[in-house]
Amino acid sequence: MDVGLIGLGRMGTGIAKSLLRAGHRVTVYNRTRERAEALRKDGATVAASIADACRGEAVLTMLADDTAVEGVVFGEGGVLKSLARGGVHISLSTISVELSDRLAAEHSRAGQEYIASPVFGRPEAAEQGKLAVVAAGPKATIERFKPLWDAIGQKLLVIGEQQSKANVVKLTGNFLIATVLESLGEALAFARKSGVDAAAMLDFLTSTLFNTPVYKTYGGLIVEGKYDHVGFALPLGFKDLRLVQQAADAQKVPMPIASVLHDRFVTALARGHERRDWSILGQVAAEDAGLARAQSA
Amino acid sequence: MDVGLIGLGRMGTGIAKSLLRAGHRVTVYNRTRERAEALRKDGATVAASIADACRGEAVLTMLADDTAVEGVVFGEGGVLKSLARGGVHISLSTISVELSDRLAAEHSRAGQEYIASPVFGRPEAAEQGKLAVVAAGPKATIERFKPLWDAIGQKLLVIGEQQSKANVVKLTGNFLIATVLESLGEALAFARKSGVDAAAMLDFLTSTLFNTPVYKTYGGLIVEGKYDHVGFALPLGFKDLRLVQQAADAQKVPMPIASVLHDRFVTALARGHERRDWSILGQVAAEDAGLARAQSA
Amino acid sequence: MDVGLIGLGRMGTGIAKSLLRAGHRVTVYNRTRERAEALRKDGATVAASIADACRGEAVLTMLADDTAVEGVVFGEGGVLKSLARGGVHISLSTISVELSDRLAAEHSRAGQEYIASPVFGRPEAAEQGKLAVVAAGPKATIERFKPLWDAIGQKLLVIGEQQSKANVVKLTGNFLIATVLESLGEALAFARKSGVDAAAMLDFLTSTLFNTPVYKTYGGLIVEGKYDHVGFALPLGFKDLRLVQQAADAQKVPMPIASVLHDRFVTALARGHERRDWSILGQVAAEDAGLARAQSA
Amino acid sequence: MDVGLIGLGRMGTGIAKSLLRAGHRVTVYNRTRERAEALRKDGATVAASIADACRGEAVLTMLADDTAVEGVVFGEGGVLKSLARGGVHISLSTISVELSDRLAAEHSRAGQEYIASPVFGRPEAAEQGKLAVVAAGPKATIERFKPLWDAIGQKLLVIGEQQSKANVVKLTGNFLIATVLESLGEALAFARKSGVDAAAMLDFLTSTLFNTPVYKTYGGLIVEGKYDHVGFALPLGFKDLRLVQQAADAQKVPMPIASVLHDRFVTALARGHERRDWSILGQVAAEDAGLARAQSA
Repeated sequence: MDVGLIGLGRMGTGIAKSLLRAGHRVTVYNRTRERAEALRKDGATVAASIADACRGEAVLTMLADDTAVEGVVFGEGGVLKSLARGGVHISLSTISVELSDRLAAEHSRAGQEYIASPVFGRPEAAEQGKLAVVAAGPKATIERFKPLWDAIGQKLLVIGEQQSKANVVKLTGNFLIATVLESLGEALAFARKSGVDAAAMLDFLTSTLFNTPVYKTYGGLIVEGKYDHVGFALPLGFKDLRLVQQAADAQKVPMPIASVLHDRFVTALARGHERRDWSILGQVAAEDAGLARAQSA
Repeated sequence: MDVGLIGLGRMGTGIAKSLLRAGHRVTVYNRTRERAEALRKDGATVAASIADACRGEAVLTMLADDTAVEGVVFGEGGVLKSLARGGVHISLSTISVELSDRLAAEHSRAGQEYIASPVFGRPEAAEQGKLAVVAAGPKATIERFKPLWDAIGQKLLVIGEQQSKANVVKLTGNFLIATVLESLGEALAFARKSGVDAAAMLDFLTSTLFNTPVYKTYGGLIVEGKYDHVGFALPLGFKDLRLVQQAADAQKVPMPIASVLHDRFVTALARGHERRDWSILGQVAAEDAGLARAQSA
Repeated sequence: MDVGLIGLGRMGTGIAKSLLRAGHRVTVYNRTRERAEALRKDGATVAASIADACRGEAVLTMLADDTAVEGVVFGEGGVLKSLARGGVHISLSTISVELSDRLAAEHSRAGQEYIASPVFGRPEAAEQGKLAVVAAGPKATIERFKPLWDAIGQKLLVIGEQQSKANVVKLTGNFLIATVLESLGEALAFARKSGVDAAAMLDFLTSTLFNTPVYKTYGGLIVEGKYDHVGFALPLGFKDLRLVQQAADAQKVPMPIASVLHDRFVTALARGHERRDWSILGQVAAEDAGLARAQSA
Repeated sequence: MDVGLIGLGRMGTGIAKSLLRAGHRVTVYNRTRERAEALRKDGATVAASIADACRGEAVLTMLADDTAVEGVVFGEGGVLKSLARGGVHISLSTISVELSDRLAAEHSRAGQEYIASPVFGRPEAAEQGKLAVVAAGPKATIERFKPLWDAIGQKLLVIGEQQSKANVVKLTGNFLIATVLESLGEALAFARKSGVDAAAMLDFLTSTLFNTPVYKTYGGLIVEGKYDHVGFALPLGFKDLRLVQQAADAQKVPMPIASVLHDRFVTALARGHERRDWSILGQVAAEDAGLARAQSA
């Protein structure tokens, strides 16, 4: 297919590569052009403007947060104005339920189609086409663009016509992952202070009850104290947690674990961990227990 | 091997069957004798007293809580007095770190050996020999009784010589499972009130990031609102959570998620769910969000 | 003095009466004019527009939330446009730190002065001139308008030149009051379920250690289960709690009690208490403990 | 009256002085005799044994915790054995509801009377006869010993015949005070990081809504960072908080603020504050916000 892609952070770059590798034509745009140029060798066309990226069958956006999406979509020369009537905007970003609802309304008013399609996975998975993807929006349109999802993900959940439902699923997933980080942090701090070999315990638990990559990967990072390889930065994790809380407040759903996570994110930020991976969350409990940071092997 | 087994609740009964199926001689004892008699058909010998169950190569105990273990071990005619010098007590129960330390001291004083070996798994897994087992104690003794663990479990972690470390691992694991229950409860309440198909979302998440039985099994129970088939009763879950908190307090490890779980267990008990499976924890968030109990399909 | 007053909810109306009683000329404006007309008998002049209320020595605003203030100040025909250069805007509303900073910037750009002056006290206190008031802004201006604060309050704290500091104090105070509600709710639920006479205990505690109106008044409401006389509505309390959390997040201050309060507000809202006084917060713990609502004497 | 007093910590010593000053005959006993001897100059008789302190009209005990009370009462040569039939034991200690119930049962079995009468106030108040006191037990007996309470306290609440109700009131009060410490800690950390003059804010709040010694005294300690004059040691505060939680668990009352306090106490202990006053609780939030300890003026 012939698509535009706006936003070339680590996730966007990985997605561009997966799309190109699958044979799609991809016109890429990024505010700082260097990142777009870097994709020429992979076969990408570099767009000079947002409008240039909006001339294909669909434009995909993969941006950091609500503010970035609002700027790119609603700003002067933005997607909303650039996209033709009947054009399709596929938003891969993790954004608020509220903004997703607004995008649905605005695109509809402009006679355009909007698909919310947030993704799960770290940058490595994006580049390998191994993301897990959720999508919501007009059924026929999702069907039509299936080849795109086949290129970037290994699993697709279509969760309905109302776009923001996909965002709810994405936020829920991130809430569950953050809970894993915090609970492992507490569990490992408890084990370490009790004299238990934390690595052996983690290996046992993740070979039995918790035999799944989230526990293995993040547990390993926490046990080894490796937070500097940033797959997902702490402030982005906090942003998502707050989006969960806002959406849950709007639906009147009390979420006490989300509240604990909120406090932990703030504590981690107050301790100066802004530039670390969000798995640093798993270290806060250790710090509060008076433990020094685990040493890498 | 020739062993005694004291405590024939659903877990103990399953373990007895697995041991017998593997060809071991098992002399069983239970306070209410009917449960022991029921195992005759599986090949068990029925003991008339605790002392009778202490005449083999080792005596295993599988009891509900600290009080029960204290009664059986330290009480009149109990294990401590009945076991010969050089005898071996293998405690499979989920007990406090404190009591495990005391058992180590008392058995040592009596010239006996003590192995702490708590198990993970629901009654079905016990009966199928599919438990995950932790063990701590004298190395040679653990080696000697390996056939027992082969019979009841599919995975064994030996975590050191100090027995209570095995209890720490067990309590940590239960803390992590309870966290899964609560976080799924919050996540699913949020999804449901947002209009998302909770079953589809759960299926997606447990086919990708959370592809592990704990999330699948318990998530399924919560989505379907099935809490009446009791694999592990709510009050036992609360007991274990409190043991985690006591042990963490003793080590000075703050565990805010454990505190949230504490409140949720109390709330569930206050709402009259004593006789339900501890997965009912996953319903408290739904109740607080004003949702009715999910209906079974 | 000759001032305008915009916003005639229960608090604004009480403040208008106190100002008039003290001999000030007050031109009142309210979106629904009836409330303004009702003050004629107390000596108020009724403004036909926001602009009409901006012609005196200062204009005071007493509005429900950020959105209302933004509408009245930045909207078409709003305060910012209506006030002359050198004009003074005294904002009595409980608003966000962020909006207060923005008001400071915008009024400054327009050559106007801005004083943030949120107030503590229920509507009765406003009408009796017994509010406690915080103020921040240009020192000379605050000095000049001192007669206004004398009319409405019995205590004034001037907390500096940076306006939003007054808002921080106000939000902090409301956080502390909400904490009192929740802690009394938990304490009284615990006492009641323990068979203790809650009214007698409250009377004792508020005659000794907690001998202050906040504990007496709210404790009394909780003990008697009287939540229908609305001095401060639950959703407003929740709004303020979220403003605290936003401002604390911005300053990277973890506030775990604020997080508990957040969950409790959401629970109270989910249970349908929107139209109740925020002291209903003190009933959530009782409900979670399985207690019926306390009966009024 | 002629009474014995066992336990001469700072509280017990203050109480002894108040009793003596009021003209009562007091026979004092303390495990380390020096503290008893020190009271001779105030007119006390020094007992050589617990039994010696049990020969008057009543024996008062003022001990650190459950373990100490169990030792003194149930131990060999303890109060239970030493007191005559018809003798009266007045327990001033802050102990568990459970132990209070047990004391009631055991004294009753021994034909003795038992009054639970925990006290509120710091050591200075004990010495000045300004404690606030709760009492529960047989009505006539409480009436008879009224002169004792007149000597040590300025306020007495009689809360019923079931002794442990007095303990519930005491624990509830301590829970409320601990909540004040934590909420002030969070509030002041928030204010300080927002650039607000914390002392001025505290002075304002404690002259208006929170015009009561608990807020003034503890707020002052927190603002000034003075935690080294120990009126009530951190570990004792934690002990009481856990007694609240145990009793609330037994009554099935979820108390989320108590859970927050639990975590904060553990954090403060993990940070090495064992020997500080429990007002150090008010510093944990500041530490988590990255603030240095407040400097004394």
